[in-house]
Amino acid sequence: MANVTAVTREPSSEQELPHPYLLFLGDTVHPGFAKTAFGLKQWAPELCLGQFALPSAQIDLGLPNLRPAEARAKGARALVIGVANSGGFIAASWIPALVEALQDGLDIISGMHARLGDIAELRYTAERHGRQLIDIRTPPPRIPIATGLKRSGKRLLTVGTDCALGKKYAALSIARAFAERGVDADFRATGQTGIMIAGSGIPMDAVVSDFAAGAAELLSPDAAPDHWDVVEGQGSILHPAYAGVSLALLHGSQPDVFVVCHDPGRTHLLGDEQFALPPVEEIIDLTVRLGSRTNPAIRCGGIALNTSKLEAQEAEALCAAESRRLGLPVADPIRGGPAFDALIENCLAAPASS
Amino acid sequence: MANVTAVTREPSSEQELPHPYLLFLGDTVHPGFAKTAFGLKQWAPELCLGQFALPSAQIDLGLPNLRPAEARAKGARALVIGVANSGGFIAASWIPALVEALQDGLDIISGMHARLGDIAELRYTAERHGRQLIDIRTPPPRIPIATGLKRSGKRLLTVGTDCALGKKYAALSIARAFAERGVDADFRATGQTGIMIAGSGIPMDAVVSDFAAGAAELLSPDAAPDHWDVVEGQGSILHPAYAGVSLALLHGSQPDVFVVCHDPGRTHLLGDEQFALPPVEEIIDLTVRLGSRTNPAIRCGGIALNTSKLEAQEAEALCAAESRRLGLPVADPIRGGPAFDALIENCLAAPASS
Repeated sequence: MANVTAVTREPSSEQELPHPYLLFLGDTVHPGFAKTAFGLKQWAPELCLGQFALPSAQIDLGLPNLRPAEARAKGARALVIGVANSGGFIAASWIPALVEALQDGLDIISGMHARLGDIAELRYTAERHGRQLIDIRTPPPRIPIATGLKRSGKRLLTVGTDCALGKKYAALSIARAFAERGVDADFRATGQTGIMIAGSGIPMDAVVSDFAAGAAELLSPDAAPDHWDVVEGQGSILHPAYAGVSLALLHGSQPDVFVVCHDPGRTHLLGDEQFALPPVEEIIDLTVRLGSRTNPAIRCGGIALNTSKLEAQEAEALCAAESRRLGLPVADPIRGGPAFDALIENCLAAPASS
Repeated sequence: MANVTAVTREPSSEQELPHPYLLFLGDTVHPGFAKTAFGLKQWAPELCLGQFALPSAQIDLGLPNLRPAEARAKGARALVIGVANSGGFIAASWIPALVEALQDGLDIISGMHARLGDIAELRYTAERHGRQLIDIRTPPPRIPIATGLKRSGKRLLTVGTDCALGKKYAALSIARAFAERGVDADFRATGQTGIMIAGSGIPMDAVVSDFAAGAAELLSPDAAPDHWDVVEGQGSILHPAYAGVSLALLHGSQPDVFVVCHDPGRTHLLGDEQFALPPVEEIIDLTVRLGSRTNPAIRCGGIALNTSKLEAQEAEALCAAESRRLGLPVADPIRGGPAFDALIENCLAAPASS
């Protein structure tokens, strides 16, 4: 009867999420509601053995369709709920499929607001079969108060002018580019999709505020001098609802380098028309000023523009113009190319004065 | 069997803490460990009917010694644990006295880290006698995400260069001074002692970080145009562990005026010798810059110096010198006097440009 309630994960490699995964798509019709599954397939294809959807679903990740027993036979260890519906609930229509997964030997991993263990049928089945119900949004226990003490190794943090404009994808792209250059680097996840991709991490938005900076310290522990942690940012230092999370993450991460993520087509905060999007320069200036409290050597490595709504030529021209204006590398990490190479080189360059 | 577990308090006058109080001193020997009781007696004497100590205690608040039954007969409704020991635990030696209070008709209010309801004997007794166990450190349920929408009424927030240097006492002193001038004002508590004094409030340090700014919005709701909420500050915007809490409180409080609290004798953060105390000017500048996101009219009303370690003349000279240097009123709220009057007048003055 052990290991039945939500597993408490620590951000150490010893206690990674059980994998590889079978991606559960529920009865999803629109791809936008399967963001978690698409993100996993794009960024952690080696973790994704197959997909499992209800008959009414209309999306396809291009992975083999497997039932839980088949996936288990191929080595899968967990079913991941790959759906991100509005409200974060676990639909009643999914329960038979989730029960089948538990019966056939898979743990279940969920990033929904609703807790798996609160559903009696899942709890009962997991207990009977000795399986784990893992709620990603549960922070680890015993998070310490932050000390502000300098840690060894190097750190990069993605920050933003707003929420939901590419901080996770920028961090993943940068970590991958570092690795391609032979740099020892880890992506450090701070949100639920990022945690599933990385296999570990801490959901910053679920940590009690007194411990938020301590959680960020725990997330990127002491490391070898040349090792880089690339930390997924959250919110924005000028967001009226989430700035506290962003500042705790900045102070606790102690980044040597930060990259500002921005959507050039956005004029106001998402869903908050009364607030103008802050200029990139203001985010750079405030991040240096506040971040230097725990790392006096902090510097901006460049700007990651989300140009997904532009044509390739427009995007390239915009990045070049912004780069001239700001005197920093500007690139769309998803497009890559020479501009992104320049951004990566600048992030890795030794700081001018130390 | 209703009302047995921890009451969930809302920061509205309808759901105030049960009062008046019997202050429980446990077996405390040093006054420093009865800070909560001394704070209550100083700032809310009308709530304090008596004191109740174990035989080994060696402190005296100067209140009548009453057993729970006597206090109940005089109208007391709750026993408040007035002790703040290191670790925030509920000592086994206190349990018989707490059981007696429940049996004799008092609810129990605690600001300790340990939860009253986790102690089986207290839970059982409270259930049998229909009494409430109220853990002040439990935030209210269903805190919304902050909207950043402007609220009616006026707000003052105390901010600090560090923790534990007088933000609560400054806010209480300012609220009292406002009331003495006929201004309609409420003290809004954000920590456990403040909540007991005010009879309501939200423990900011216990709120999940995503909801921290929303909690601050809930704490000082829409009010009459001339009404002032005087909000107790927490931490410091440049504290490596708690800055996220401070920024969420700043954004959610939307203060028209802030007062910077500072201890002129402190050179480094309390318990954190590696961090120099930031200059008052830097706190003013950053608070205006970050706070203007949710209230563009934010301004500094003055500086509250904690001069408790100085002689009266030294304190007066220091306040005068700092006032000249900064071009703002500077006073010790606990000493009062003309300097404090000037600070209060400046806080209440109509802003220059609106």
